[in-house]
Amino acid sequence: MPYTYDYPHPAVTTDIVIFTIRQDELKVLLIKRALPPFQGEWALPGGFVNLDESLEAGARRELEEETGVKDVYLEQLYTFGAPDRDPRERVITVAYYALIPSDKIELRAASDAEGVSWFGLQELPALAFDHAEILQAAHARLAAKLDYSTIAFQFMPKAFTLSELQQVYELILRGPVDKRNFRKRILGLNLIEDTGETRKTGAHRPAKLYRAVDPHRVDVIK
Amino acid sequence: MPYTYDYPHPAVTTDIVIFTIRQDELKVLLIKRALPPFQGEWALPGGFVNLDESLEAGARRELEEETGVKDVYLEQLYTFGAPDRDPRERVITVAYYALIPSDKIELRAASDAEGVSWFGLQELPALAFDHAEILQAAHARLAAKLDYSTIAFQFMPKAFTLSELQQVYELILRGPVDKRNFRKRILGLNLIEDTGETRKTGAHRPAKLYRAVDPHRVDVIK
Repeated sequence: MPYTYDYPHPAVTTDIVIFTIRQDELKVLLIKRALPPFQGEWALPGGFVNLDESLEAGARRELEEETGVKDVYLEQLYTFGAPDRDPRERVITVAYYALIPSDKIELRAASDAEGVSWFGLQELPALAFDHAEILQAAHARLAAKLDYSTIAFQFMPKAFTLSELQQVYELILRGPVDKRNFRKRILGLNLIEDTGETRKTGAHRPAKLYRAVDPHRVDVIK
Repeated sequence: MPYTYDYPHPAVTTDIVIFTIRQDELKVLLIKRALPPFQGEWALPGGFVNLDESLEAGARRELEEETGVKDVYLEQLYTFGAPDRDPRERVITVAYYALIPSDKIELRAASDAEGVSWFGLQELPALAFDHAEILQAAHARLAAKLDYSTIAFQFMPKAFTLSELQQVYELILRGPVDKRNFRKRILGLNLIEDTGETRKTGAHRPAKLYRAVDPHRVDVIK
């Protein structure tokens, strides 16, 4: 049944950038497209928004349908709308992103996806549409937010050492972070607290284990 | 001539939040709607995106058509897409915002606008659609960015005193800013430079005039 309008309408999709850290690498969740266009190529999960659902609900639905990932905190990234970004018709996409700890996530490809996988940002395949640009924008946002937000805590397990947190910063920023300044700044923010536990690591003395004071907080640091 | 699609499509608009500072007040640019829905009510400038133009080009076109304002640096704010936000049909709007100095701006209402005016944020009329929510989000973004960006410099004339800059911060944050800390932080960022000129203000000794090192820079401060 065709839908008729007095003037031309674009299609609207959502695309979702899910980051995690696995095997000491910053990784992104990609799906292999089961349908044209770009059939058989890798892409960000996403798809058309239903007219009766919010943008975020559409993003959550597509993410779960295509990858099995659910119950994540999505943040809107940016809306991409270059007139020629989709070969089919004018498609405007609202991009979301989320950071998740890699444990306990079971992937399951279905719906428009014939595959789903984590890819390190250094080993990306060619991506469909303008998804390389969307992914780059998400990575830039993530790196910029390290400086003024608690965003990186979303990657961490319940208890972690300062070295582990520093390593996450280094993986996102792709370079070394000064240990002394890092510790001073992080502890000064009062966003993590000593759990009273320690962890024995290698030949060093046991490292203190910390936890986020509020693990769901992603506020801007004042 | 009707346009038909195999599945339902939303309409896509842009809405633009233009802030300025006039008469010691943070003000926003509103238009009076010439057409239904919300005919005769005040709203943000904006309108439907043409299928052959980018989202930002659509925002620029609507802003100029309805208000006469052009050549401003627009930044994407957020995309609002609640299913019921427009009484006509599903309309998703990509909101942009900009800060402009108030001098030299000539307003001219045309197209879908039968009026155009600056309104202080303390004296807003009821706004059409969800535009009060969009405006609130833009104000929150602006206030948050003061802490880690050069965004406020966009309000300033070519040369300004530190007191004038501090006043802009206070107008945006709606509260007092500590003078000593403010001066120390702003000067320490090396984003403004002494012009060598001074301005005589009242009975005080003349105040130094500063200028932005790069007036177009809106980078995040590292």
